Amino acid sequence: MEKLAQLRARMKAQGIDAYVITGADAHGSGYVNGYWKTRAWFTGFTGSSGTVVVTRDKAGLWTDGRYFIQAEKELVGSGIDLYKQEEPGVPTYQAFIKDHLPQGGRVGFDGRTMPVQSYDALKKQLNDKDALWVYDLDLIDSLWSNRPQIPSEPAFAHELRFTGLSAQEKLTLVRGEMVKKEIGGYVVTALDDIAWLLNIRGSDVPYTPVVYAYAFITASQAHVFIDAQKVRGIALDGFSLHPYEGFAEFLRNQHTVKGKLYFNANKANVLLSEAISKTLPVNRNPNDDILPLLKAKKSETELANIRNAYIKEGVVLVRMLKWLEDRVLASGELNLYEGDITRKLIELRQTQPDYIGDGFSTIAAYGANAASAHYNPGPRGAKIERDGFLLIDTGAQYLDGTTDTTRTIPVGPLTDEMRHDFTLVLKGHIALAMAVFPSGTTGSQLDVIARSPLWNEGKNFRHGTGHGIGYVLGVHEGPHNIANKHNAVALAPGMLISNEPGMYKEGEYGIRTENIICVKEVFETEYGRFLGFESLTHCPIDTGAIELGLLSEAEREYLNAYHKKTYETLSPLLDEAERVWLENATREV
Amino acid sequence: MEKLAQLRARMKAQGIDAYVITGADAHGSGYVNGYWKTRAWFTGFTGSSGTVVVTRDKAGLWTDGRYFIQAEKELVGSGIDLYKQEEPGVPTYQAFIKDHLPQGGRVGFDGRTMPVQSYDALKKQLNDKDALWVYDLDLIDSLWSNRPQIPSEPAFAHELRFTGLSAQEKLTLVRGEMVKKEIGGYVVTALDDIAWLLNIRGSDVPYTPVVYAYAFITASQAHVFIDAQKVRGIALDGFSLHPYEGFAEFLRNQHTVKGKLYFNANKANVLLSEAISKTLPVNRNPNDDILPLLKAKKSETELANIRNAYIKEGVVLVRMLKWLEDRVLASGELNLYEGDITRKLIELRQTQPDYIGDGFSTIAAYGANAASAHYNPGPRGAKIERDGFLLIDTGAQYLDGTTDTTRTIPVGPLTDEMRHDFTLVLKGHIALAMAVFPSGTTGSQLDVIARSPLWNEGKNFRHGTGHGIGYVLGVHEGPHNIANKHNAVALAPGMLISNEPGMYKEGEYGIRTENIICVKEVFETEYGRFLGFESLTHCPIDTGAIELGLLSEAEREYLNAYHKKTYETLSPLLDEAERVWLENATREV
Repeated sequence: MEKLAQLRARMKAQGIDAYVITGADAHGSGYVNGYWKTRAWFTGFTGSSGTVVVTRDKAGLWTDGRYFIQAEKELVGSGIDLYKQEEPGVPTYQAFIKDHLPQGGRVGFDGRTMPVQSYDALKKQLNDKDALWVYDLDLIDSLWSNRPQIPSEPAFAHELRFTGLSAQEKLTLVRGEMVKKEIGGYVVTALDDIAWLLNIRGSDVPYTPVVYAYAFITASQAHVFIDAQKVRGIALDGFSLHPYEGFAEFLRNQHTVKGKLYFNANKANVLLSEAISKTLPVNRNPNDDILPLLKAKKSETELANIRNAYIKEGVVLVRMLKWLEDRVLASGELNLYEGDITRKLIELRQTQPDYIGDGFSTIAAYGANAASAHYNPGPRGAKIERDGFLLIDTGAQYLDGTTDTTRTIPVGPLTDEMRHDFTLVLKGHIALAMAVFPSGTTGSQLDVIARSPLWNEGKNFRHGTGHGIGYVLGVHEGPHNIANKHNAVALAPGMLISNEPGMYKEGEYGIRTENIICVKEVFETEYGRFLGFESLTHCPIDTGAIELGLLSEAEREYLNAYHKKTYETLSPLLDEAERVWLENATREV
Repeated sequence: MEKLAQLRARMKAQGIDAYVITGADAHGSGYVNGYWKTRAWFTGFTGSSGTVVVTRDKAGLWTDGRYFIQAEKELVGSGIDLYKQEEPGVPTYQAFIKDHLPQGGRVGFDGRTMPVQSYDALKKQLNDKDALWVYDLDLIDSLWSNRPQIPSEPAFAHELRFTGLSAQEKLTLVRGEMVKKEIGGYVVTALDDIAWLLNIRGSDVPYTPVVYAYAFITASQAHVFIDAQKVRGIALDGFSLHPYEGFAEFLRNQHTVKGKLYFNANKANVLLSEAISKTLPVNRNPNDDILPLLKAKKSETELANIRNAYIKEGVVLVRMLKWLEDRVLASGELNLYEGDITRKLIELRQTQPDYIGDGFSTIAAYGANAASAHYNPGPRGAKIERDGFLLIDTGAQYLDGTTDTTRTIPVGPLTDEMRHDFTLVLKGHIALAMAVFPSGTTGSQLDVIARSPLWNEGKNFRHGTGHGIGYVLGVHEGPHNIANKHNAVALAPGMLISNEPGMYKEGEYGIRTENIICVKEVFETEYGRFLGFESLTHCPIDTGAIELGLLSEAEREYLNAYHKKTYETLSPLLDEAERVWLENATREV
């Protein structure tokens, strides 16, 4: 309540009627570091997605279904109301501002943290309000007394044996696409795009090994805006280096461009877009971006590395699961906390070559905690008892790959309902893993395959079925996905995507089974090329939690084949006790 | 070749470099009558969809996958090349014009037959060409010596017992939606929308019982533009009548409108849109149209009538199938032609009350003819032998409903491959019929359900899985469908849609199994309302053609339950020999 009152005092002093806090950084990154965590600092809500709006007498947080339960808890005492996005009768935050802004009212925000697309949507909604826009107003900074600094850690080169292509070769690919799309100047703002292009990695952002930078590419020039200290000693032939802070000014001085200038309105912030000359022809359509699609289709070299990383991660996961089972089966008090799982995973990963760090904060969620699909246990977490399910969603960054796996582990007796839901989720997971579809099919079309077993019983999960995943980059990466919202990007060979249906019962349990799968060509017929998936993740799925009568013969066969491959792949890398454990865990059903 | 040469002579005389023939009428109707059949007259191609472009030295017909085989045959000798829409490497007709039009070239067409959306797309594509548009040029008229007249048949009232709502009540519904969408003037151009709104039917268009008319609706006025002779004696209280020909002039005189003027750019033609004052604020987005969505959600009264019509049609279909089987099983020469099926169906329908006519030209397609998904046998058709499949796709207009059913009937020995493909199609049909999905789900999301069994074996069908269907109106009706192309319209209770996966083997056979299904609510849970389908069509599916080992237990149960219901519904209306036949045809598998 105190922060809210202080912000309202500042708003009043500046004549602001509505203030918006997006919690984004200047690059639209999926995770942000301490300096940018304005939403979490202001509201107490620690989820990765949400928007805050404060007016003179109302304050709300808008977030999606993954975070309803968590946000309700974390907002207690903040004076901020939860608005559940896309629930019936709940206004969007844009509609909310429209309803509460006086005619001619002033709307303020920190333009660095506002993606252009969000600003466009807001302006459109407030069309009739004659609103005044104060888009360079960071009111949080003066309230937040010990706000962290923007970090500036050194970058490192991602070697050619990992990348397959040099930065110069990637630049040639980009320029080829620019010609096709008649783009004469390409503004690159997404940090993962820049890291992939330049074959550099760093640690400016939590969990995603990127560095703060911008780039501007033309047919003959390639400018990178980055702290020179960061890339000292890294060869970046073909690129001109400039200070990071100079990018907006550089854009302001671009007065001509061949064809069109391109920037992605989803990833560029308002301060940058306002710096672009109004006379330049501009394409801002996120669907026309070049680097996201290039980096989404993993090359053979990248895939060979990724397969290796997933084997290392498989060994880590098997060791963790065996350790967990040993603890659960031992006599005496269990004395195990959710945070212990996270620590054990890090300890095990540290014994693997080329481990950089975790890809996200491990979700070890016991019992009802797992009903929040993106629960964060924090350092200690809740105590685990010998009853029901423990859900573990975890991923690592290795120099040869980014992983993301979820398993739901029985740590004690299960109810019939738990077994039933576990099996419905597994049926959806298997159906998607086995899917075969013609080239040109999108993830939006396939989404129903993973949901049908739940839909048949009036159940569902309120998150996407699959997200793309980066290569030593973000654990969430576009442009493709598998979700019930339309996405026109077709799945193509080399794309990685998660396969993670779930089922959540508020106050009781959460279930999710997630592998990373890779799109591959399966055959070509007179109807064209048909695609399918290769499961990259090697980790047993708990067969003791399955209601076996619900599985079809084909589903059983898939599961047995998956387990056989898991055993064959991992067992040579395990000691005898681990091997015996895995042999048992992958036994045929 | 002769027509092509004559057209080119006229083009040359008028200085036209590219001439476009759409084959549409002035209302974007699904079928058109003789006067409007310019595409068929000019090219010989009789399919329902296609665009012709003639330049000084090239001529092409663009059509979709349903018609590739048919068009190839029918174009022989015309001098016109077939361009297969959406096949790899095939330019769109817009791109073709762009490639072949000289800079500053002149493009001509009959603006009555060009939907606004198509014109927009063409103008956009030719942006850089400085093309000159001659949009009121009907070059066909002077070539076509005995061109049919535009018909003007009397309309009749669709009685309240069939419609449930009066035209005045429907007008109130429309005005309610206009308020929500801030539409002050609603230009209604689609004939089925007008027929539904006014509760009138007629016979100006083949197969679809509509009358040529336009309407313009405001908050206080409702103008109908229609030949007064047609509606003599029909009460149309609340509507002002004007001559049909006066509509463009009426629009030209509309200088103010509250909110926006609306017309559907898909259904309005270029001559009308050019008549609208450039100073009026206009919404032309097809997704915002009002009447299509209102009439798509059938009311309880409409559904009760439709169920009755589908029972009558079920009796007709059973009698036809028994008659066919008797002919096939009799000794001696079969001496049966595809056209005999059409005639038999009409003869049987004429014994049913309230039969108006057929909903489309029956497709009775024997053997390889069925590989053209929309084959038209013509009056006689090919000879049917005692071998392989006969595909029958047929529908009727009754005063209480429009039907559309496809069955694939073995008339002799089948190959294993035929049985296999028949069963894959049936599995897709059953999976869609059994689907359960949350409210808000679109047909684009469900499409994969019907295709998966085929996709798994590298097979597919090149048409939509389902189309909406009118109520004593068009056999194809929007705004919803089930197809692999994105359509944002969610399926809602009361919507009818066809369920018609197929499989076509060029030169050998075609298989399709089609029922009309109705979206209904199945249950409500904490995840919201869940919807499913009720199968309205009562007609046995040939169990002798099924490879039974491919069916799952659930699929078998569905089929047996469907057959049980078919028997229970129809048997009381059949004579003893027919009843025995149906009992056998619906026996459990």
